[in-house]
Amino acid sequence: MNSKKVILTGDRPTGPLHIGHYVGSLRKRVALQNEYRQFVLIADMQALTDNAGNPKKVRDNVLEVALDYLAVGVDPSQSTLVIQSLVPELAELTMYYLNLVTLARLQRNPTVKDEMKQKGFANNVPAGFLTYPVSQAADITAFKAKYVPVGEDQLPMIEQTNEIVDKFNSLYGVEILARCEPLLSEVTRLPGTDGQGKMGKSTDNAIFLKETEKSLCEKVRMMYTDPLHIKASDPGHLEGNTVFDYLDAFDLDKSGLEEVKAYYRKGGLGDSKVKERLFSILNQELSPIRIKRQEFEKDLGEVTAMLKKGIETAREVAAKTLCEVRKALLLDY
Amino acid sequence: MNSKKVILTGDRPTGPLHIGHYVGSLRKRVALQNEYRQFVLIADMQALTDNAGNPKKVRDNVLEVALDYLAVGVDPSQSTLVIQSLVPELAELTMYYLNLVTLARLQRNPTVKDEMKQKGFANNVPAGFLTYPVSQAADITAFKAKYVPVGEDQLPMIEQTNEIVDKFNSLYGVEILARCEPLLSEVTRLPGTDGQGKMGKSTDNAIFLKETEKSLCEKVRMMYTDPLHIKASDPGHLEGNTVFDYLDAFDLDKSGLEEVKAYYRKGGLGDSKVKERLFSILNQELSPIRIKRQEFEKDLGEVTAMLKKGIETAREVAAKTLCEVRKALLLDY
Repeated sequence: MNSKKVILTGDRPTGPLHIGHYVGSLRKRVALQNEYRQFVLIADMQALTDNAGNPKKVRDNVLEVALDYLAVGVDPSQSTLVIQSLVPELAELTMYYLNLVTLARLQRNPTVKDEMKQKGFANNVPAGFLTYPVSQAADITAFKAKYVPVGEDQLPMIEQTNEIVDKFNSLYGVEILARCEPLLSEVTRLPGTDGQGKMGKSTDNAIFLKETEKSLCEKVRMMYTDPLHIKASDPGHLEGNTVFDYLDAFDLDKSGLEEVKAYYRKGGLGDSKVKERLFSILNQELSPIRIKRQEFEKDLGEVTAMLKKGIETAREVAAKTLCEVRKALLLDY
Repeated sequence: MNSKKVILTGDRPTGPLHIGHYVGSLRKRVALQNEYRQFVLIADMQALTDNAGNPKKVRDNVLEVALDYLAVGVDPSQSTLVIQSLVPELAELTMYYLNLVTLARLQRNPTVKDEMKQKGFANNVPAGFLTYPVSQAADITAFKAKYVPVGEDQLPMIEQTNEIVDKFNSLYGVEILARCEPLLSEVTRLPGTDGQGKMGKSTDNAIFLKETEKSLCEKVRMMYTDPLHIKASDPGHLEGNTVFDYLDAFDLDKSGLEEVKAYYRKGGLGDSKVKERLFSILNQELSPIRIKRQEFEKDLGEVTAMLKKGIETAREVAAKTLCEVRKALLLDY
């Protein structure tokens, strides 16, 4: 197992995971876990960087996210689940890396800049948030990850990490830290059920993996479609039509879907019919996930044991890296 | 011992300690260690924030500084000597505190602003350096220090720490972290032997505690005096006259010193005579320190054991604070 290339991936536990995560990253993790040595980080420390005032949200969602991972098929015998705050080696590495990055460089990070704009931070950004790319570099390098699955918008994080890797190795004349590469995800981001921007818990436009059949049905029923498609007989538009965006992501019967699209465009096909199709497909996909989740929910002791084991493994690996880093810094007392 | 109020003090190990440190802080530490529970931090992690490219300097000086402490009479049975990088709890605390401080606040810190100017940083300041007041807050609060001996120029550090303490306690509805107070030192800073600014290793104008008698004699002989006092018979000036600055700090025979000053002002007293007096006084002060240092140098095993014990004690105390902090952050898994 140790000869496999390492992948680092994960999520900030700020809400239960939704089908956007599923399409964007979770499916891929399940597909990759056999081929790679995968660390899946539940990044609670990172979540706190802009949720310092709401630790309960973070705490509650650590278990939620862990259950979501297990439910979709992340297999603890193949992937290492890691609660970030329980690997203190990451904090230490972050401290050392902070000395290798300038303020100007942090302020130039396009991903952080965008997020700061969204969150309305400007100069009132918490220092922990501004510096989280350095903490992320600690995560990636601690486990010597070769690949990091990311979307386009996360590429600056890879760049920042590799800059730290290069700076560290050259400054201390070592080859300790490993450069990483992005594994770009092909799937486009799913819009929210209201057709507005990203899916999210706070915006109440997400379909969660743990959604009950009933609430799934209701959410699909309420989904945003084509506002010009008032009567079934009206010609419908596919562009910006959330129901079709979701069908594109989930419907495996591509030729059947093309027929539905043509019919909808021409007029005569009601939204409710299309939504029935989407509901049926989503429910088929989410049912086994829901059932698996319920099983794990009944055995939280086992889940906790898995998490403990993951943390042990993670600490072992991270401690080894930290030890090498400390040696390079002549801190090997 | 545990009912005593706690003092946190320390130095960045970037050079051996000199008589400026002695006058400004070391003497006080020795005087206070009986009355207070004192933690003396050898702040190697902080030293790395602007010495990332020179870890050897930091490493070499950790032992130098420890020996200096022991030589002046810091007593490990009364004071806890702590090598900062060996207390990883401090890194963790720093990470959590970074979320409670904004970038704007860090950029406003007058002490850091001054140091950044001196070092020519501007926006190219390493993030670790800009954020070191937060790391210092972690040091102070980890040991629940009530008092921090500082000079006027370090008061903003106390203010920053107390802001973090207040923010933490109010945000999480706890009374975990303790506010601290400055113990202002009365003695003014000694100028360098060249009469230029602060004493320092890099500026080659320091008299170190470990100075040999011969080099002490030579350094005093070369000291900056009154450039207008060319012949012994010329009237001399005391203002900006480094030899008299040092005499003010070390000469206990105040009335004798006043006579010397009057004589020098009037004319007829050569610099070499005044320097003889200073050398004799300094040598009397430094001789026992030098001897004690040599004894410890001969028994580095004992010094190492003392340092180990200090670290153990420090980790125990810091771990307790970290545990409380993690509980407040709902990270008590």
